[in-house]
Order: sequence, then C-alpha cells, then structure tokens
Amino acid sequence: MSLTNASPSDAAKAAKEASHVLATLSEPDRNDALTAIHAGLTAAKDEILAANARDLEIARVAAESGQLSQSLVSRLDLGKKGKWEDMLKGILDVRDLEDPVGKVTLRIKLDDGLELTRVTCPIGVLLIIFEARPEVIANIASLAVKSGNSAILKGGKESTESFVSISKVISAALDKTKVPNGAIQLVTTRDVIPQLLDLDQYIDLVIPRGSNELVRYIKSSTKIPVLGHADGLCSIFLEQSADPKVAVDVIVDSKTSYPAACNSLETLLVQESALETIFPQVAEALIAKGVVLRCDAKAKTALASKLSSDFSAKLEDAQDADFDTEFLSLTLAIKAVSDMYEAIAHINTHGSKHTDAILTSSSELAEQFMSSVDAAGVYWNASTRFADGMRYGFGTEVGISTNKIHSRGPVGLEGLMIYKYKIRGQGHVTAVYGEGDGKKRFKHERLPL
Amino acid sequence: MSLTNASPSDAAKAAKEASHVLATLSEPDRNDALTAIHAGLTAAKDEILAANARDLEIARVAAESGQLSQSLVSRLDLGKKGKWEDMLKGILDVRDLEDPVGKVTLRIKLDDGLELTRVTCPIGVLLIIFEARPEVIANIASLAVKSGNSAILKGGKESTESFVSISKVISAALDKTKVPNGAIQLVTTRDVIPQLLDLDQYIDLVIPRGSNELVRYIKSSTKIPVLGHADGLCSIFLEQSADPKVAVDVIVDSKTSYPAACNSLETLLVQESALETIFPQVAEALIAKGVVLRCDAKAKTALASKLSSDFSAKLEDAQDADFDTEFLSLTLAIKAVSDMYEAIAHINTHGSKHTDAILTSSSELAEQFMSSVDAAGVYWNASTRFADGMRYGFGTEVGISTNKIHSRGPVGLEGLMIYKYKIRGQGHVTAVYGEGDGKKRFKHERLPL
Repeated sequence: MSLTNASPSDAAKAAKEASHVLATLSEPDRNDALTAIHAGLTAAKDEILAANARDLEIARVAAESGQLSQSLVSRLDLGKKGKWEDMLKGILDVRDLEDPVGKVTLRIKLDDGLELTRVTCPIGVLLIIFEARPEVIANIASLAVKSGNSAILKGGKESTESFVSISKVISAALDKTKVPNGAIQLVTTRDVIPQLLDLDQYIDLVIPRGSNELVRYIKSSTKIPVLGHADGLCSIFLEQSADPKVAVDVIVDSKTSYPAACNSLETLLVQESALETIFPQVAEALIAKGVVLRCDAKAKTALASKLSSDFSAKLEDAQDADFDTEFLSLTLAIKAVSDMYEAIAHINTHGSKHTDAILTSSSELAEQFMSSVDAAGVYWNASTRFADGMRYGFGTEVGISTNKIHSRGPVGLEGLMIYKYKIRGQGHVTAVYGEGDGKKRFKHERLPL
Repeated sequence: MSLTNASPSDAAKAAKEASHVLATLSEPDRNDALTAIHAGLTAAKDEILAANARDLEIARVAAESGQLSQSLVSRLDLGKKGKWEDMLKGILDVRDLEDPVGKVTLRIKLDDGLELTRVTCPIGVLLIIFEARPEVIANIASLAVKSGNSAILKGGKESTESFVSISKVISAALDKTKVPNGAIQLVTTRDVIPQLLDLDQYIDLVIPRGSNELVRYIKSSTKIPVLGHADGLCSIFLEQSADPKVAVDVIVDSKTSYPAACNSLETLLVQESALETIFPQVAEALIAKGVVLRCDAKAKTALASKLSSDFSAKLEDAQDADFDTEFLSLTLAIKAVSDMYEAIAHINTHGSKHTDAILTSSSELAEQFMSSVDAAGVYWNASTRFADGMRYGFGTEVGISTNKIHSRGPVGLEGLMIYKYKIRGQGHVTAVYGEGDGKKRFKHERLPL
C-alpha cells in the first residue's frame, strides 16, 4: 500500500499497473496476503485504537458544537463492543470464501482443435469512496485482494488518523506477500474526489460507501460506472387476503428494526378493501413502536373510524412529496390503492428499484407482483430488511446495487468480477468458415464445465 | 410500434411503461410476436424494397457528388444478394433461441420456509442508435422482443424511407400480438440524439451500432450505460517458438480477411529473436496480399536483410502514433519486442481491450499471456477475427463490448438481461436473526437449480 502524496493520476496509474500483476496471482498468493493483513492488524490493535481515539476526540468536540452528527461519531468508534473483532473476523471470512477468479462459465467447441472458454477475471481498478467507519478500509482491502482487483481508497476526513494507522499496518503486511505494492492505493490528500472521478482511463468501477448525498454526487460527477444506490425507497403492498399476523410482523420489522437502513420500509400501499380489516392492527402496532403515519385521505378516514382516539390523534396527512421521500426515520407514508395493479404502477413510478414486497395469501398474485415490479429485490411475505449480502449468504457485500446492468441487489465478490473469452486453436483462421460451397461449418458444441 | 412525432421524452416514457408489461409476457407470447413480424415483412417485400430503392437513389446522387461514401451506399442496399433473406431468417433464428427470461441462476434456502432465488429478467428500455443498414431495425426489434425489453430506435437519415416502411410493417404485425404498442418506439424526428441521451430516468442501456465516431460521441455524451466499443485495436504477439505456418495463416487472416472490421489486426508485436526466422515469411505473405508494413527500426532492419529488394522497398517507417491507430485498412504497425512481458505491457497500454492473440508453441507462455492481457478476447494460435457472436455460437449479437462491467466481448441475448432476487417467505422478519443468545441463525443452504 502506498501511503502517498502522489497525485491522484499517479496513484491511479500505479493501481492499474499493479492490477495486471494481481490478476495473475494464484488463490494461495491472494489468501496469504489476507492472512498477513489479519496478523498485522491483530498485533497492532493498541496503536490503531489509540489513533481511533484521537479521531473520536476531535469528532466529539465537533458534535458538541453541532458541526457533526452523533450518529457519525458513533460510526467512527472502532472500540465499540464487538467492532474490532468483527473487523478482524471479516478478513478471514473473506479469505475463506470460494475463489471468484478463473471460474469457467462457458465452454464451446467451435471446431476440431478450436475451443472457446469464458473465464471470470477481475475488473481491474476499483475506486472506493467512503465517509466515516474506519473498519471499511480493512473490509474493502480484503475484498479487493481476494477478487484480484486493485483498489484506490479515499476516506472521509473524520477518520483520517484511524485510516492512516490501519493502512500503515496493511501496507507493511502486504510487503511480505506477492500482492504488488501498488495494488492498494491510499489517497489522503483532501479535495481530490473530482480529480479521481475523472480518471476513467485507469479506474474501472467506483463504489461509494456512505450517505445518499455522497452516492448521488458521485453518480452525477463521473463517466466511470458506479456500483450502488442513491436511494432506498422500499414499499410494501398489503393485499386484502394477507394473514394479519404476517402483516403486522413483516411491516413492523421492515419499518422499525433499523429505520436508517436503505432496506427499511418507506411507503405502505394498502388495498382499499383491507383498510378497515387488517390495516388497523398494523397501524396500532406501528404507532405503538413510535412510527408516525402519514396517511392519504382514504387511509386516514378508514383508520380514524377504527382506532381509539389516542391512536387516531397521532395520524398525519400525507403530502404528495411523502411518496417520493426516503424518510430514514420512524415516519411512514401510507396510501390506499384499489388493487395490485395500482400498487405495481405506483412502485414502478415512485420506487427506487431497491426492494419491494407484497403481503398476500395468494401465490398467484405474489408471483404476478414479483414479475411485474422492477426492483433488485421482490419479496412475498417477508421483510424488506432481508436485502443484505450477509442475510443472502454472500459472506460479505460491497453495497447494494440498484443498477440495471452488471450487478443488482446485494453485491458480494461476484459483483467485483467480469470475464474474458479465451480461444485455444492450432492456427485456425476465419476465412475458411461460411455458408457457401466448400466452406467449413462451425460445430458449436457445448462442453461440460 | 409508434410511428410517432411525439417528443423523445414521451416516447421514452411510453417505452418504459410498456417494458413493465413486456417483462411479464410468456415465452410463447414473445415468440408469437416474432412470427408475426416475420410474416408481415415477408408479405410486404415489394413495398419495402421500393422504399429502399428511393433511399438508394438519393444516396447514390450524394455519393456521386462526394457527400456520402460508396461503402455507405452499399450498406444501405437491402436488395443486395441474400440480404433480404438473411434479415428474415435472422428473425426466426432469434425466435428459436433459448428463452433468456426467467432463468433461475441461484437458489438458497435462507431458513425453513424462506427461500431466495435469483432470476434473469429484462433490463428495461434499450436505446439503439444506428447509421445505415436498414435491416438492423428488424434484427434489433427481434432481439428486444425476445429478451422482453422495450426498444427505442433511432436510425440514420440515409435509410429513412426503408426504416419507416419496415417499421410500419412491424407495427401492424405487433398490433395483433400481446406485445404492447409502446414496446418498440421509432423516433424519426431529426437531431434528437442529445435529448434521448439525457433521458436516464427512462432509458437503461444505449447500444450504438455504427462508426467508431458515433460510439465515441455517444459514450462521451450520456450517463446511461453504453454497450459497445469505440475502438478495435487488436494485436498479435509473434513469439519465437511459433509454428511458421500457423504464424502466416493466422496473421494473414487476422489482417486481410476483412480489414475494416473491429476484430482485424492492427499491431503486430514480433519477438526480436523471431525477426529473421519466422517473421520474413509472414511479411512476404502480408505484402503479397497488399498489406503496407509500418515497421519500427529493428523490425525494418531485420526484414530488409531478409527480403528481396522488391519486397523491402515497400516497407515503411512506423511513427509512435501508428501503435495507437486503428487503421481499418491494409496497413499494419509492426514493433519488435524483447519478450512476452514487453508484448503484454505494450498491449495493456496501447490496446483497446477488444481481442489480442499470441502465436507460440508453448502452452505455458500462452496461458500466461491469456491471464495477463486485459481484453475481452485473448487467443492462442487463432485469428482475432473469431471475435464475433455468430462465430462464438451465440446465434446473434448486438455488438462487441469492451466494457469492464456487465457484458464483455460479443454480446448476444444474455447481455440484454439483468436479474432480480425473489424471496418467498411466510411472514419472516429480520429482527430474530443474529449472532447473540436466543437469536436464530440463517441456514444458507444452496439448493439445486
């Protein structure tokens, strides 16, 4: 790792050159580097936590004067129960995942002695831009090395001390391995993000880890593909045949288990015929958890007729803008819809293509909903909060993508790969193949992988 | 199909809405639409060829006054031997390809009663921008319908009459099928490309079909992902142990079988130790085919010492710029390199990540070359001109991608797909899962596809 004052352009060029070597390393070589990083960090715990304490001290002062949010201070803290251990365990977890490099995904015999294979390979150079959370450095460095990609890391200024401390350790650890020095580049100079986003000749993919504002800014500022999502406006459609217990459990979990998460519920669409049957129980459970319900007129009228005055006094009127808002808090927009088709149309227009669910007892309606809603995740009778790489069993994730190409949903190692086509021949030329007389025909025989 | 004077924005919005219906149609519904298009075009042959003749007449006049190239006039001609038949056959070929929609590519049992599946689905709305070649309309409409994507078609003005004629027939044919009217949008108004490239809220992928200049312009003018390649600077490394016959055959085919193609050879890297052994035969064969050799000093000196004066008089001196030039003609840049590593470094710096080959008798060197070169296609002892969807056995292609994400190399139906994750539960919530005491653990059990 280069702890460099080099220009962003030099750092990116070095990362690109290193990527060509890293792409050819064996799995044991890449895994050895992760073992070395783990050992290095384990040995350096005290000095890293001391550096982190200095970041925290500055952040606490800034928070007291209102310049920084308390939640950011909390995210900075590497000493928080379990965080350090999780970071270290994460490195070994990534190491022990199946090797994503060099998987043969297609084999075709084009002709005698002429074979086509498609093989997974690293993308090249990743630019990871993140805000607080110093542990992300170790996580991303692990993912990059495991997947054979170079990474350029640009962290937020609040975690600078932690960041430099961790990266010095990673740098020293990598020096003893076959992973080339330039493969992980640390950029500590400030205000270089616009320059980095301009380096499309060297950088193949940008992965922002941070606020919606950060992601939106990056998406609008670069021609390099960006993996991630700016918005997480998840919706649930409560259909009239839904099981009441399922409805209460899933909606409460989706909304309240971590309201600031991108996979939390923001809009609840209720079938009109369910407004006075299942919906009041759901509303009571939500209000009991402190959720503010912003209802459209139909939903509010129906609820008011069914809830006690204590509860109904807390209902608010929804504005149009509420149905395009990712609240990230205990506020929920509620709209009555006549049927599933209106719900689907609403989601496809107002949603963010992240994760949407239907609650129904009809498998036919559920399948129709899941086919029709255009989103990375479409669920039946399950909480939107399952949208997560760990919960999906991917071992780890670099983020959740709402892109329509490449990777979608929670992105693990697979999303850091592309493929190349290899042909092995014996002097084969194309001119002899064709449809006419005397021309050879291709065999195009699929071979087992 | 809407033969519309609607604004680009209205056309794109309608295409997006139609895409949500198209995505839910069954394979027979989509195939029926292709059968109907085929039947419609078959019946309307005379009127379409008459429209094409009008385009051709205008183009021929423009070509005579030097405003249009002869090759463009030739590409316009639908009446050219076999072209009409190929266009019609192409529609049925696409129809008969395996359905790319709804393939389950991953199944994981997250817990009892909670199953995750990953299913292929259409991307949404494709914008296809092309120059001449009126038959592309039928080809692209077929691919879009088969893959469940809406398409917005914007053709070059030279083929307007043919284009309108073919699209009227397609439109009438689709009216009798379940494919919604808005799914294929024709934009005939002029100068709307910049407006279309701005509609990233509706358009998911741009596919340019035309000159390098067109592709380069589009890539630099939109935030929408672009599938394709601007450059095709393919290289071959001639290693010292190469079989001389393989070297002559493959290099001559790569350079001369269709010099204007993107997969043709533009740079030949010759190992110094092969300059006076294998290389002179290769050079003679190329010169005999009319190829102009632009050699660096070492290659020229070596060749001059071996070739007859007739041949050596034809050698030219290479300039630095020649090694960054896609000639698309019978000119070849030639450079001497000391070994394979210099060749790999040259290709990774100067190539366009399209297709590169090594000619060698060493399988070890070949495998090393194929791992190290960062390109969509890396070949051993085979012509670069095999880089083609038909030759790969993909049935058809929408283009050849040098992108580092999503699709790479020749792109068939698979490249027009993305996926979504579906979860089917029974009221499952996330809050009960975790590492702590009393928390449930995920099962993460891979299920057969």
